Amino acid sequence: MLGAFAAKFMTPAPYTIGVDLGGTNLRIAAYSGSRGIFDQIHLPTRLQAGREAVVRDMCGAIQQLIDRHSRAALAGIGVGSPGPIELPEGRLRNLPNLPGWEGLELRTSIQNILGTPVIVENDANLAALAECLLGKGKALGVNSLCMLTLGTGVGNGIILKGKVFDGMNGMAGEAGHATIWPDGHVCGCGSHGCLEQYASATAVRRLALEAIAQGNAPGLSALHKKNPEFTSRDLDELARAGDAGAQKVFDLVGRSLGLGLAALVNTLNLPLYVIGGGVAQAWDLFSAKMFEELRHRSYVYRFTDGSVDAQGHRSAKTYVEPAQLGAESGILGACLLPFTVSASTRAKGGS
Amino acid sequence: MLGAFAAKFMTPAPYTIGVDLGGTNLRIAAYSGSRGIFDQIHLPTRLQAGREAVVRDMCGAIQQLIDRHSRAALAGIGVGSPGPIELPEGRLRNLPNLPGWEGLELRTSIQNILGTPVIVENDANLAALAECLLGKGKALGVNSLCMLTLGTGVGNGIILKGKVFDGMNGMAGEAGHATIWPDGHVCGCGSHGCLEQYASATAVRRLALEAIAQGNAPGLSALHKKNPEFTSRDLDELARAGDAGAQKVFDLVGRSLGLGLAALVNTLNLPLYVIGGGVAQAWDLFSAKMFEELRHRSYVYRFTDGSVDAQGHRSAKTYVEPAQLGAESGILGACLLPFTVSASTRAKGGS
Repeated sequence: MLGAFAAKFMTPAPYTIGVDLGGTNLRIAAYSGSRGIFDQIHLPTRLQAGREAVVRDMCGAIQQLIDRHSRAALAGIGVGSPGPIELPEGRLRNLPNLPGWEGLELRTSIQNILGTPVIVENDANLAALAECLLGKGKALGVNSLCMLTLGTGVGNGIILKGKVFDGMNGMAGEAGHATIWPDGHVCGCGSHGCLEQYASATAVRRLALEAIAQGNAPGLSALHKKNPEFTSRDLDELARAGDAGAQKVFDLVGRSLGLGLAALVNTLNLPLYVIGGGVAQAWDLFSAKMFEELRHRSYVYRFTDGSVDAQGHRSAKTYVEPAQLGAESGILGACLLPFTVSASTRAKGGS
Repeated sequence: MLGAFAAKFMTPAPYTIGVDLGGTNLRIAAYSGSRGIFDQIHLPTRLQAGREAVVRDMCGAIQQLIDRHSRAALAGIGVGSPGPIELPEGRLRNLPNLPGWEGLELRTSIQNILGTPVIVENDANLAALAECLLGKGKALGVNSLCMLTLGTGVGNGIILKGKVFDGMNGMAGEAGHATIWPDGHVCGCGSHGCLEQYASATAVRRLALEAIAQGNAPGLSALHKKNPEFTSRDLDELARAGDAGAQKVFDLVGRSLGLGLAALVNTLNLPLYVIGGGVAQAWDLFSAKMFEELRHRSYVYRFTDGSVDAQGHRSAKTYVEPAQLGAESGILGACLLPFTVSASTRAKGGS
């Protein structure tokens, strides 16, 4: 009786719906500050059925969650998409994981079906938002950070004062494509020597194959013979077992990350830089070289080491830390997004 | 009669006082939105007399301007110092142009003498602020930009929504020390291959001397014999006269700037990047290579070229432009600074 009474007359706690659109999976979750993710729907991303079908699947799941809970208490809908996308309209550019989607206005497509505003954001930015509000940012008590996600590629997101920094049209935070080695390996973005070519899981495997081709990495060659489909995780194990060739790969990952971080620290001077994604699990294998390079390359980093000088003045501290949240960060960020923008921005579905 | 009456009873228009502290010159100016800089005092920076003497000179000049005009209408005092400095306290770190000043809290030192709050800021950030509010930013109708000032070193300042972006403690915008060529020339900052080593006036001269030492730049060798103290301006003239060796120097300046800009565009996605300082006068000598490199290195730049796609959608536009204001930008930025911070921030002398 009380339950039915409460459901009818009490205002439910405000909640949001977040969507994580990936090339393989589609996740839709309902979230509140007190309960976290309290309901969710997992679907395959039906790429072969076409983009309109995927958008309809997404909207159907959002509608299900609204019907199961409350329309009145819905504080907003956040949708994460792989980048690059143009904001606020959520116009997709050429996405390797979503072939044929270029030019789709994701926000308009969803709003036309649902009849309610949604906010679209780059998924790497949403991972950074979650890490800031619920992960390492919260743990360290800071509300600004820059995150690098070392996955298939290298994602990047910047959070300033608890909000995603989008730049002019949503393309800020693409430091995964900052040039690290000007004459380095060709990148899918059209440039050479991008951070992504030296710090992603794909890059770790390629660097190992290059070492094997050079013929001076017996441990890597043995791994390759045993398992031609070896991944960065296998290399991780091999390096931990003491293999010099595998460790050399992670040394280069570390140096490249140090160079990339140094430019970010010199430009942004934020209190926290977070490294997430699968390759971040090799933190103890690459971080020594990363910090060595970062200290060498960035006087801003050296000047913000939290030390106390002769006059008793304690300097500010720049933290560089592994991520805390893991694979959940994307969907969590989508859920958090509506809480971080103003009501008027939510109403028009973008900033 | 009317003049005396007006002076006594009418509220004068609000104005600010700006200070530009340089290693050689000290400028103090009074500024209002309607009149621009309407009074100013120039002094030599008496480095040999010690930092306390310089601070006293500065405060004396500020006081003179207040006495000549109005204390009631004074909206704030902005002080620009060479960086790196820690904000908001204006604590100086190791400044090559102000030897022996390390550790000085510039804001406190000035406030203790004047008894009124002042706001301290990095001079490269102030040049960017002026360029945003009164220069190219105003001309293009944007309120965010990133500026590189190619002088003795390479200064950098970032303006977001009409305000200086300071980062955590005033050290944002040090992209002059982003690594461009990882194995490049040693830099005063302790790193190698910084942008400053390839795009400052000092770098232009060094690159020419390196070409002379290699023995394959007859035009540069002749210039060096004629004038051993040649500067980047002399090289500028030589390149314009068609000398291949001098043009090669500016080609490398352009490529280096393109690499530096690409990382900034990929990270910040701002509407405008401005190149100022003396070397920017060689714009037509280096900009072709700069844009070539920038297009190659930054898909964010390529995606924001203002073009119209097949569906009639016009993309956002990233502008890269020479500065408009010239050497006045530092003092103008110091004058503008108090207008860009909140009253409470002004009252406590920092953000």
